[in-house]
Amino acid sequence: MQEKIQNNKPIGIFDSGFGGLTVMSAVGKIMPKENIVYFGDTAHVPYGTKSKKTVTDFALKISNFLVKNNVKMIVIACNTASAFSLEYLKKNIKVPVVGVIKAGSVVAAQKTKNKMVGVIGTEGTIKSGAYEKEIKKYDKTIKCFSKACPLFVPLVEEGWCNGQITEKVINVYLKNLASKNIDTIILGCTHYPLLKKTIKKVIGQKINIIDSSVAVALEVKDFLIKNNLLKTTGKGRHRFYVSDAPEKFKAIGSKFLGDKISNVIKAEID
Amino acid sequence: MQEKIQNNKPIGIFDSGFGGLTVMSAVGKIMPKENIVYFGDTAHVPYGTKSKKTVTDFALKISNFLVKNNVKMIVIACNTASAFSLEYLKKNIKVPVVGVIKAGSVVAAQKTKNKMVGVIGTEGTIKSGAYEKEIKKYDKTIKCFSKACPLFVPLVEEGWCNGQITEKVINVYLKNLASKNIDTIILGCTHYPLLKKTIKKVIGQKINIIDSSVAVALEVKDFLIKNNLLKTTGKGRHRFYVSDAPEKFKAIGSKFLGDKISNVIKAEID
Repeated sequence: MQEKIQNNKPIGIFDSGFGGLTVMSAVGKIMPKENIVYFGDTAHVPYGTKSKKTVTDFALKISNFLVKNNVKMIVIACNTASAFSLEYLKKNIKVPVVGVIKAGSVVAAQKTKNKMVGVIGTEGTIKSGAYEKEIKKYDKTIKCFSKACPLFVPLVEEGWCNGQITEKVINVYLKNLASKNIDTIILGCTHYPLLKKTIKKVIGQKINIIDSSVAVALEVKDFLIKNNLLKTTGKGRHRFYVSDAPEKFKAIGSKFLGDKISNVIKAEID
Repeated sequence: MQEKIQNNKPIGIFDSGFGGLTVMSAVGKIMPKENIVYFGDTAHVPYGTKSKKTVTDFALKISNFLVKNNVKMIVIACNTASAFSLEYLKKNIKVPVVGVIKAGSVVAAQKTKNKMVGVIGTEGTIKSGAYEKEIKKYDKTIKCFSKACPLFVPLVEEGWCNGQITEKVINVYLKNLASKNIDTIILGCTHYPLLKKTIKKVIGQKINIIDSSVAVALEVKDFLIKNNLLKTTGKGRHRFYVSDAPEKFKAIGSKFLGDKISNVIKAEID
């Protein structure tokens, strides 16, 4: 049967900068035939310290850009933007929109045995309480303990993913959380997977560490199958847009994507 | 003699966020009679990792906002914006514009005895080479050694201005610089004065540490006197505008200003 034109349309993925490339990497691995358009909002990065209104304004402009680029759906690959803007975008954008918070919450709720879950993320994500709300929808008896870790993003962007300083910073942020007897912790920011090994080293190997990217990719695949939108033939093409500094994105982005980025286009969204 | 209406107009000061309040504090202390309008671009902070084009776009929009607010001159209280946008704004804005780099460079060039000067700042400021150019204009024989310190701003914004972690980060960034036999170091970012004591502790008490804020305030005063624009009567009124999160600015800003901030207005510049 011939595939519909609709299915060949790309998936749109956006983030405040590089972090969402960890989600794109998972989407690309799980659905290698899908075309993907990625937008990194490097002119406005970071989102984690900004207000709901401002982040939602950015998210709306980017979503409109992606819709103009003919995407069949949008994945908000940024926890802060998902926490602040998912409901708004669902109402105001004419293609389906998926965030990263639900998928990670469901996996954590399934993994925890003692019903004690830790959540770490940016100031904005943690203040929003979005993870806790999603986890409670799944299982009201789960207790959540959360902590904003503002220095994790700059540490990752500086390339300091391990070493004594990073271990000490992790210890300062997570020692209280670890003392709560949690058996599962959600990495509620797309930069944090790059700190996964060091976090495990500091808080103990036994704690389940939940990185939402794979869970989100599986949710996207499930959605596309159910809606008969999956692209099943040919190799996927990937395009990258940023709002600032494409050369820098190309250089740093490959660390997050785990693959070379060959072409990045600067696009205006303001 | 009756003072001219022109003199009562405010001085406009802008920065990417809070950092420029260290400059505002110096301007307010040296010229307590001056009215001041401050703009913190909290929707787009930080500037230090962004491109010249993007930072100049932000700086132009803010300068136009300040001109609409009837300022008699503009002080770019951000090193990155000064490095990237001063010349452009001087040509495109109808009031006089002063940056922070010249004043700090002159003081450093006057202070150094062995003609070996260190410069630290954001990635953007250091890459621009703006301090080195200014210092060489003053004295070609001075040798400059520079280093970008991307984690200093997040450390200050997290309130970690001292302690073991901050000392270790300072040591990583500055150990090479300190080994060059420099006798003077320029704090080329408005956040860094909050790390001054800890920097001294790590690199030694004998090195002159140059914080441009007082030097800039003196340059502004000198300019106003020469142009017969100084306000010499009454107490100065201070107004604060931000592009995002006014409540947060009020709370954190007072640390930088060294004084309570009572009213902050959100203004759109996009």
